[in-house]
Order: sequence, then structure tokens, then C-alpha cells
Amino acid sequence: MMAPAAGELGVHLRVLVEAPGSSAAQVVTDAPVGAAGDEAAVRELIAPTDGRPPADVLTFEHEHVPNDLLADLIAHGTPVRPAPHALVQAQDKIVMRRRLTELGAPCPRWAPLPVDPEAGHARLVEFLAEVGGQAVVKTSRGGYDGKGVRVVSSADEAADWLAAAAAGGPQLLVEEKVPFTRELAVLVARRPSGEVRTWPVVESIQRDGVCSEVVAPAPDLTEAEAEEARTAAVAIAEGLDVTGVLAVEMFEVLDSTGDGRPVRRVLVNELAMRPHNSGHWTIDGSVTSQFEQHLRAVLDLPLGDTSPTAPWTVMANVLGSSLPRLTDALPAVLGAFPDARVNLYGKDVRPGRKLAHVNVSGHDLGEVRRRALGAAALLRGESLPENPTTDETKA
Amino acid sequence: MMAPAAGELGVHLRVLVEAPGSSAAQVVTDAPVGAAGDEAAVRELIAPTDGRPPADVLTFEHEHVPNDLLADLIAHGTPVRPAPHALVQAQDKIVMRRRLTELGAPCPRWAPLPVDPEAGHARLVEFLAEVGGQAVVKTSRGGYDGKGVRVVSSADEAADWLAAAAAGGPQLLVEEKVPFTRELAVLVARRPSGEVRTWPVVESIQRDGVCSEVVAPAPDLTEAEAEEARTAAVAIAEGLDVTGVLAVEMFEVLDSTGDGRPVRRVLVNELAMRPHNSGHWTIDGSVTSQFEQHLRAVLDLPLGDTSPTAPWTVMANVLGSSLPRLTDALPAVLGAFPDARVNLYGKDVRPGRKLAHVNVSGHDLGEVRRRALGAAALLRGESLPENPTTDETKA
Repeated sequence: MMAPAAGELGVHLRVLVEAPGSSAAQVVTDAPVGAAGDEAAVRELIAPTDGRPPADVLTFEHEHVPNDLLADLIAHGTPVRPAPHALVQAQDKIVMRRRLTELGAPCPRWAPLPVDPEAGHARLVEFLAEVGGQAVVKTSRGGYDGKGVRVVSSADEAADWLAAAAAGGPQLLVEEKVPFTRELAVLVARRPSGEVRTWPVVESIQRDGVCSEVVAPAPDLTEAEAEEARTAAVAIAEGLDVTGVLAVEMFEVLDSTGDGRPVRRVLVNELAMRPHNSGHWTIDGSVTSQFEQHLRAVLDLPLGDTSPTAPWTVMANVLGSSLPRLTDALPAVLGAFPDARVNLYGKDVRPGRKLAHVNVSGHDLGEVRRRALGAAALLRGESLPENPTTDETKA
Repeated sequence: MMAPAAGELGVHLRVLVEAPGSSAAQVVTDAPVGAAGDEAAVRELIAPTDGRPPADVLTFEHEHVPNDLLADLIAHGTPVRPAPHALVQAQDKIVMRRRLTELGAPCPRWAPLPVDPEAGHARLVEFLAEVGGQAVVKTSRGGYDGKGVRVVSSADEAADWLAAAAAGGPQLLVEEKVPFTRELAVLVARRPSGEVRTWPVVESIQRDGVCSEVVAPAPDLTEAEAEEARTAAVAIAEGLDVTGVLAVEMFEVLDSTGDGRPVRRVLVNELAMRPHNSGHWTIDGSVTSQFEQHLRAVLDLPLGDTSPTAPWTVMANVLGSSLPRLTDALPAVLGAFPDARVNLYGKDVRPGRKLAHVNVSGHDLGEVRRRALGAAALLRGESLPENPTTDETKA
């Protein structure tokens, strides 16, 4: 999804792709095949080729990259953005929680679990007692879309993970199970020279641990509440020295002021140091998309205007489909929703796989949601839902 | 510029490109090299390859295509859109004027000039007398961006063209020199099943016969006047059986009603049967861009919403530059105009060449124009103009 922006700005993209037919290889002309962890492939990716100069910058669309190699590339003169010292914060949740706590960022209560299984068990028992009830055990590395996350009421429920950690598997941490009212996300872009821009705070709606829908901006947020969330995200981008796009996923919790009046607060849940699903709405709903902004940021070009182009934009993910090919649904989708911005990823259909998204913008949130969810349903091979809009999110 | 839309809709583009490094080859992965007039290259373009099925449809981004070959392809089962019987209307101005006259489309007074140079001379003398003053002699084929067009006050001024036509060069026609107040353009999309959509009428500002700026929508047009222009354009799209995008370039003339009140009328100037420079504003200023719409139309998919996404969008062309590479200007352009949508074409710099365009959208037309023209000036290697906004176009 970075390819259109690269084309428009005259940026030559060379992308390391997993396989010849992968999504990126379908739209990028210079797409050598190789694994992100393959040192030779990464070195060749940034080397001068066919009379072309070496890469100006190396960047990423996921966090599964070899940081030692990246550090070495930097030492030999290739800018890597975000740099490994920032990237590790999105790779390792224990490192991230520790640093966010130092920065004073709002976090859920948390604790690293000792690697020794008995000590780990004991710490988990103690933590459960502290938070009084349920807690969330997470693997520090490798979690994604609900994987590596388990809600537990007793330490025994994490016995297998504690054993795995002791056997050399990923370390564990535990966090309080936050009684959140909803999930928010703040997208920030920061360039090496320090310029920072944020987009409006969005609401992210998850289904089975995976983002299914994003509403931009998040409804019913006061300007002060939005500003608090954005300020926290900017402080994290600056504190971690992030370059490029950073998505800060947050829990919204209801707190009360001294006089008992309810007030919304945010707690940082996860970080993604790249263009992120919670920012796909910007492709059609913002003057500058997160993909263009990421390119501008990592190339240290001035950042673009992040204003929304409509009062509301809703992004609906297409997770799996009963159709053999999503293009089969285009006549129905485009016919029913002429204003839907359909973005197919060119992937083979598999259950639950993120295959596409749809953006719809407009003035009436209820109608915008209805249309985005309707278009996504048709792409999943379903018929149109009767009324997907629930009262609490209707504007 | 069709590539991003193709990617999003899951349409595989195979593009015949002039040279390996051409604009399209930089952004389309499947881009065999060949001339549009090369029969073998065109036949291979649409043939099944590497287990892929044959092309669903053949379309164009310019009109310099061999119609006999296209007719043969259609006869053998490949849909060609627009079809040659429509396309010829954008290739041959005599054919076009004749057909538009039959359709009752509003046209300037015109006449074909006989090929015999003496008869041609005599007809031109007669025509000049009829219109009383100047006239515009045009070559029926091959004209583009002010080429193949000459304003004459006497028949002698066209003597060389008359001789060239007699010697087998392009036939000539003559049109009255319309005392137009400005130039307008209407973009229409039509699919084979008949659905038609238009975008708002735009004002197109020419410099030295080449479009330098487009203002969308055209300022100071009443809804009735805009409707008249759109209705004429739709009638042409239907009358000529156009499929895909059609740009109808028009002259705006001031007429007077019975009671002497001035009223705006339009006269059709030129047709382009493809996405057109006058529609580049739609990439950033309309829900559906002309490029996506063209794909939808030629694939007979439902057409997209053509609503503008902002009250005003101004597109400024970058025609030539004093910079060796336009990317050199990006820090200055993006820094000065964070909301400018810069679109570089990846072409080598040559004097007067269309190298890029910039779109700016917003609520204040004067400010929007200032920003679009300023960004284009920086890309041309100039410093920012003091005040490019003239009073008559200020909103």
C-alpha cells in the first residue's frame, strides 16, 4: 500500500518479498524474493544495482527483522528507520513496558514473569491477588492479532506457557485485565529532524482479537480527551526515538474526577512501528495517508497534512471470505456502494485472513458505518446485514 | 496513473510501454515494450501468457492506436473499449465535427477544407468572410496540446498546410475563432451497459495552448449552466457510444437572452476518449478518480461516486523545470505546502514537458490556487510567485 505514494513522490521502492506472487510483488516492479531474516538478501536489497546508487534508507512493514544486522548496516552507513533501538520496543513487550513506565506513559499495571517456572508461577499468583481477579499473560515476543495473549484467572492456566518460557521460549509478562470501555488508536509520524504529526484519534473495534473496524475520528471524545491521547502518543514517539509511522493502540477507561464526574483516560496497550491497520482509513479519509507519511518520514522529507477529508471515515476489514476470489464480489459491492473505497490485497482466500479493507467517508456516521460494513460483508461473500449499526455508535 | 486503482481493485494491468524506463514501466510490473501501432506487440499484449487467461479488455491512454487492428481484435472476441467506431471521433476532427453536428451538440461554426489546394483556399476565403475576421485552421488528425492548430486572418496564412494536405498530409478543417470567456471541461464515464456518470464541470486554464491549471468546480457557474454543459457531454458520450472516460473540452461564450441579460453557453472544442489532464484533479479531489472510473467503465463494473471531496480543488501542471530532477524540489515543496498532493511522472526533464501535477483542495479558492500554483512553481525550479491569484478567478 506504499507503492502508490512512492510512485507519486518519485521514490523508487525495492521491496524484499516473501514469494514472487505476494501482494507487494503484484504492485512493485523491483521486488526481489527473500526472507526478512536472510542477511544476504537484506544486504543485497540495499546494495547498488545496475548502475543505481545504494538505498537511501531501509524501512519495514512488519517488525520481524534482525536487529543485529540492522545495527551493522547503520554502522556501515545505511540509514535504517525506525532504528533497531526504537524497533525493539515494538518487538519485545517487556522492553516496551519497562521503557514506557520510565517515560511516564499511561500503562496498565504489569510485571515481567521470572523465567524460572516456580518463581514465575509465584509472581503470577501474587499479581492476580494485586489486581483482584483476571489478568492477561503475554509472550514478550511474537504475539500478533490476539496470538501470544491469554486471559487467566489463576496461575495454573499459564502453566504450559511458563514451562515453555523456561525451556527457552519467549519470556512472559502479565498485565492487569483493563476494564476498558473501548479501544482507541493514535497514529503518529516522526522524521529524524524531529517534526511530528498525528492524525485524529480513532476507535478500533476488535472481533476475536483482530481489528474488524476503525471509526475516524473516535466518536464522543472531547477535544481535551483526544489531546491527552495524542500527547501521550507523541511523547512515546519522541521518547523511543521513533522515525516513520508509529501506531499506539490504547484502552479507553472510565475514571472519576474528585467530584465523582466520569472522565475518560487512556492506557497504552500495544505499539506498532510501521503503517498499521488502524491507519488504513487515512488512504481515503485524510489529506496524507499513513503510507505516504511513512515514506516522507523515513526519507526525512517534510510531513504532510493529516487533516481528515470528511467528518467521518469508517474502515471495515475483510477477514476471510466464502468467495473463491474477492474480485467476484466487485459487481455487487460497487453497485450497492458507489462511494465505497475498496482495497483488495491480492491474497489467496484463507479463513480469517486479512484480504481487503473498505473505506467509506461521509457526514452521517450511522450511514457511513452501514455502508462500510455492508461492502465488507459482500466481499466476505455474505449478504447485506440488516442493520449493523448499534445505537451507541450512531452519531 | 491507473496503476494504483488497478492494484486496489485487483485488476491485473498489462501495459504496452514505449521504453523500459517509461513512466508506466516504473509502476506496472507487467509492462512489455512495444509501439502502440505494432500489430504483433498488441496481439501479444492481450494473448494468454504463462498460464494466465487472455485479457478481459483492451483500453488506451492515448488515441494513437491502429483502428483496423482493433476492429479485427473485436471480431475475434476481445472487447476493445472504447471501440474504434467511438475512438475515431477523438482521432479525426472532421469525423468528430460531422457527427457532433448530426447529434445537435453545440459546436463552433466549422467546415472541412477540400484537399485540392485551390478549392481549399477558396473555401477558407469564403469561411473567413462568413465568420468575419479570424478563423482556426486545424489538421484533422495528429493535433495535440496546441500542435496542428493555427489561427489565421487570411487564407494565405494556411498555404503551406493546404499544400501539405494536397500532398497526402492530414486533411484540414476550419472553425470560427470563438470569442470565449474561458475554457470548461466535462468529464464523463460510461460503461457498456449504459450507466453514465459525470464529475463537476471544471475550468481549464491554458498557457501557450497547453493546459496549465484546472479549477474544480468551475467558479461562478450556475447550476443550470453546469447542467447544460454536463447534459451536452452525456449526449456526446451516448451518441458516440463511448465506453470508458470521455473528456469534453468546451468554450464558454456569453450569449444574451431575449431581454438582453447575458447568459453563458458552451460550444464543444475537443474530445479526448481516455482519462485526461482536465480530470487529474479527481485523483485527490473526488471520491472516485477518473483512472479508477475508466477501469470500472471498460470492465463494465458499476461506476463510482463522482462527488468532490472538498469545495475546491485546483490542479496545477508542471510544464518543464530548471531542476535536473523534480525530486530535488520535494523538501521545499512539501515543506511549504504540507497539503499539496504532488504527483511526479518519473519522466526526464525537457522544456515544456508535462512532468508532474499538484492538487490542492480546500474551502478558499484564492488560497487553494495560490498553494497549487506555488507548489508547481517550486517544482519548475522557480521561487514562489508573489500573488498568482487574479481578481476574476478569486472566489
